Amino acid sequence: MDGTMMKYPLTLTSLLQRAGKLFPEVQVVSRRPDETVHRYTYSDFHVRALALCAGLQRAGLKRGDRVATLMWNHAAHLECYFGVPAAGGVLHTLNLRLHPDELSYIANHAQDRFLIVDDVLLHLFDQIKDKVNFERVFVVQHMCESLPANCEKYESLLEGASGQVEFADVDENEAAAMCYTSGTTGKPKGVVYSHRALALHSLSIALPDHFNIARRDVILPAMSMFHANAWGLPYAAVMTGCKLVFPGPDLSPESLLNAMQEEKVTLTGAVPTVWLAVLECLERNPGRWKLEHGMRILVAGSAAPEMLFRGFDKFGISVIQPWGMTETTPICTFSVLKPHMENWPEDQKYQVRAKQGLPSPFIDLRAVGESGEIPWDGESVGELQVRGPWVTASYFNLPEQPDSWTEGGWLRTGDVVNIGSEGYIKITDRAKDLIKSGGEWISSVDLENALVAHPGVAEAAVIAVAHPKWQERPLALIVAAPNVASPTVNELRDFLSQKFAKWQLPDDFVFVEELPHTSTGKLLKTAMRDRFKNWYSKPRSD
Amino acid sequence: MDGTMMKYPLTLTSLLQRAGKLFPEVQVVSRRPDETVHRYTYSDFHVRALALCAGLQRAGLKRGDRVATLMWNHAAHLECYFGVPAAGGVLHTLNLRLHPDELSYIANHAQDRFLIVDDVLLHLFDQIKDKVNFERVFVVQHMCESLPANCEKYESLLEGASGQVEFADVDENEAAAMCYTSGTTGKPKGVVYSHRALALHSLSIALPDHFNIARRDVILPAMSMFHANAWGLPYAAVMTGCKLVFPGPDLSPESLLNAMQEEKVTLTGAVPTVWLAVLECLERNPGRWKLEHGMRILVAGSAAPEMLFRGFDKFGISVIQPWGMTETTPICTFSVLKPHMENWPEDQKYQVRAKQGLPSPFIDLRAVGESGEIPWDGESVGELQVRGPWVTASYFNLPEQPDSWTEGGWLRTGDVVNIGSEGYIKITDRAKDLIKSGGEWISSVDLENALVAHPGVAEAAVIAVAHPKWQERPLALIVAAPNVASPTVNELRDFLSQKFAKWQLPDDFVFVEELPHTSTGKLLKTAMRDRFKNWYSKPRSD
Repeated sequence: MDGTMMKYPLTLTSLLQRAGKLFPEVQVVSRRPDETVHRYTYSDFHVRALALCAGLQRAGLKRGDRVATLMWNHAAHLECYFGVPAAGGVLHTLNLRLHPDELSYIANHAQDRFLIVDDVLLHLFDQIKDKVNFERVFVVQHMCESLPANCEKYESLLEGASGQVEFADVDENEAAAMCYTSGTTGKPKGVVYSHRALALHSLSIALPDHFNIARRDVILPAMSMFHANAWGLPYAAVMTGCKLVFPGPDLSPESLLNAMQEEKVTLTGAVPTVWLAVLECLERNPGRWKLEHGMRILVAGSAAPEMLFRGFDKFGISVIQPWGMTETTPICTFSVLKPHMENWPEDQKYQVRAKQGLPSPFIDLRAVGESGEIPWDGESVGELQVRGPWVTASYFNLPEQPDSWTEGGWLRTGDVVNIGSEGYIKITDRAKDLIKSGGEWISSVDLENALVAHPGVAEAAVIAVAHPKWQERPLALIVAAPNVASPTVNELRDFLSQKFAKWQLPDDFVFVEELPHTSTGKLLKTAMRDRFKNWYSKPRSD
Repeated sequence: MDGTMMKYPLTLTSLLQRAGKLFPEVQVVSRRPDETVHRYTYSDFHVRALALCAGLQRAGLKRGDRVATLMWNHAAHLECYFGVPAAGGVLHTLNLRLHPDELSYIANHAQDRFLIVDDVLLHLFDQIKDKVNFERVFVVQHMCESLPANCEKYESLLEGASGQVEFADVDENEAAAMCYTSGTTGKPKGVVYSHRALALHSLSIALPDHFNIARRDVILPAMSMFHANAWGLPYAAVMTGCKLVFPGPDLSPESLLNAMQEEKVTLTGAVPTVWLAVLECLERNPGRWKLEHGMRILVAGSAAPEMLFRGFDKFGISVIQPWGMTETTPICTFSVLKPHMENWPEDQKYQVRAKQGLPSPFIDLRAVGESGEIPWDGESVGELQVRGPWVTASYFNLPEQPDSWTEGGWLRTGDVVNIGSEGYIKITDRAKDLIKSGGEWISSVDLENALVAHPGVAEAAVIAVAHPKWQERPLALIVAAPNVASPTVNELRDFLSQKFAKWQLPDDFVFVEELPHTSTGKLLKTAMRDRFKNWYSKPRSD
């Protein structure tokens, strides 16, 4: 027996129309590539997203056709976030940090039909244009008046929209957007987000115990709009009616802090490296910026070290750590204290906040170790597996990947976690990054987070290197902090000894100029492991 | 082209399991009918809801079978809210204020198979038992040890649950609960809520700009659990992990205020009459209760007068007005200020807060007048029409009701509203209660809200009576406030003259002992119009 309820689909178009009607006066602010500021309202955004929708349909867009973007974070990208799905198309955000070979592979694999590209990123398009098959290319002109051959103006696409727009009458399970995982191994794989997944994800992240997104919020998405839906913030902001502040290409600490101060930002987010730099900048310039009290910073992409929480708390800024991945739309968990924890000692509270947290409603989590599902004892570790309405069940146009899902249909995340008695998950490693020394697991993430708390350390990576006796031993790679004396190896060893057992300490500490990262800001440990794989078998210099 | 997302249904069972896992220590407090207090945890609730699920399945419950409840607000009713749908059944809450003939009509029309009934309500069951066909009747024993013939203990139903429970593998569109409208005319009509509708409704009401439901909240649902899902609060509370406080049968101001103080309630809700009495009690006993600062009171069921917002503000308590109906699960709109309104003059802010507000995401509203959709000018009026995933598209097992839906599939609410330029709807009347005097509409709701702001008025109803010259004229029925001198007719007329034009004033003011209400606390105007229909044609005594 079914309910008597209406068959009303959850679509992004519904959110777009709502914003245009109810929040026409709310501002959307974008920093252009030349640092000037573009400012318009939700009413303008709404009109232009509808014009984009109509323009794409005039250009012959059919239901399900992919429209690629190669763009920074700004208002025109927001127009694509809504205008493309409203037309029945699929927004395919291309990751502009990828190698041209990967970019062209991805665009071809997704069969992208149109491309919308920032003028300042045309050099990337230039590198792939002979290998891809975009039918038409539309250029968003921030700075350049002239267009390359065979390119058209984005503005021309929007022009000529006449009155009524015909929205595609989509089912909620139809595709609205897609994104390729920038995995550290193998070819990139596509994840296709349905309208339903993005709609439910918007409701989830807006909840009070999650990102707590209200109309009074001013949101600065400093995570990339070209990856993983910018953690869903653009969709949730439009749903809620929040002022949006887009940073453009410049994510330097000073630029971000200026924007936060000028636009009275209350909620922002990016990967840890961005916030480590911002914190350092705040500490170096006491009193220079006046930020909104109670501002929240979302930190994800890789595990946030505890010192980030402690550091920002001193400025009245609250760090919130969620967890997710491209395959999960992306946000699945949120580390927010339970009410009874408020009276816990400070240290214990920071430990909880630095975990990845509790699952959202409608997200099922479990961790599976060598002997099945692990107990919630905060010690046992297993691979995190996840199910839910915004978790992918397959990759786009790929043969079945039996390693990626369990037989029961859970997504295998590749993250190794423990689960505490309160249900908070804590990532201890990527499955591929685990260090197993003499039969015991050592958490590289814990060591890294401890190391960055040392004032002399800007960034740290701990990797496994093959060892003749212990199979694997941890090795620490250190980027020294600027403007302070570099710590010695002995200092670092003593520093870690306060928290870790002797056998868990890295065998050595190697100072490097910089650490390799993936295109989405994660540490690229495969490259490091490769470079140091013969650490114990070759002659040592130190 | 569909997304690659999992087909993961939105079900109440998912929320139940989540609460049992993540919030086992959270309390559920129930005032028993004898005023003693029952207290257990979400862990207990979870175990017992699962036992109920297993028990019903042992009793032969099939997918879609209706299980009726005849119960007050307490923990066992919460167990039914989740345990019945988890078993694949449909929770049918019977409205214990209905006439026995209506009750038996409803139970038979819904084909209820089982009944779960409070011992203190067995007298109601007694009045209908010969006219209904419950296969088995289970009694929740709050006070009585003995059972009537052919009744069984609710506790026995729960006993014998052994370990693993088999949840029904329901689709999200399947029925989870149902409720009959207590319309003022015609036979009651059934609305069947799907798992999906209740799940989405839970996410919606929890949003920060709506009821803002967080884990820190302590929720006291003082609206009836036997009607309209108690506005969705039990579902949203369990989803979120909030402490719940159930008031049992006693909704007197002192009992509610005691419970709020003792359990540190932060969010509660009921119909206006309950809160008018609570406010009066607070004002009469300054300093007697110490309530949580920032407590929110939800007021719905009928329009909340502005004086309620002003009155509670003085105690640091915030009144929030949503709007909804049985047909809409029920909550569709929320009157919360937009950020730019915070600087408006006090009077203007109260005017907005006393409206019914803005629609939730995924709820479409419009108002249709004599010449089509009305403009958002705050003056034109039309019938409110609504669409959305938690709005009913039909009534249960009834032939089509063409008057209830438009051709385009919008639900016709029967509420007459205007819409201001900011998009806030304001109910000016029920379509059936409209007063048309000499071709001009007069709002009975506005007059009523103004009248209750007079200290000498406890409750007021304004109805249309036939008039030989003006077709209809307004007549005010007044219940005088206790403990103060009753106002004279001239005083009331002068009082209203400050806000209303002369032609809008009621022709007369009639003092009555009490006003008739529907079973859900709304003014029953049909009865009043009937009683006073010959006001101008019969000899007058005053």
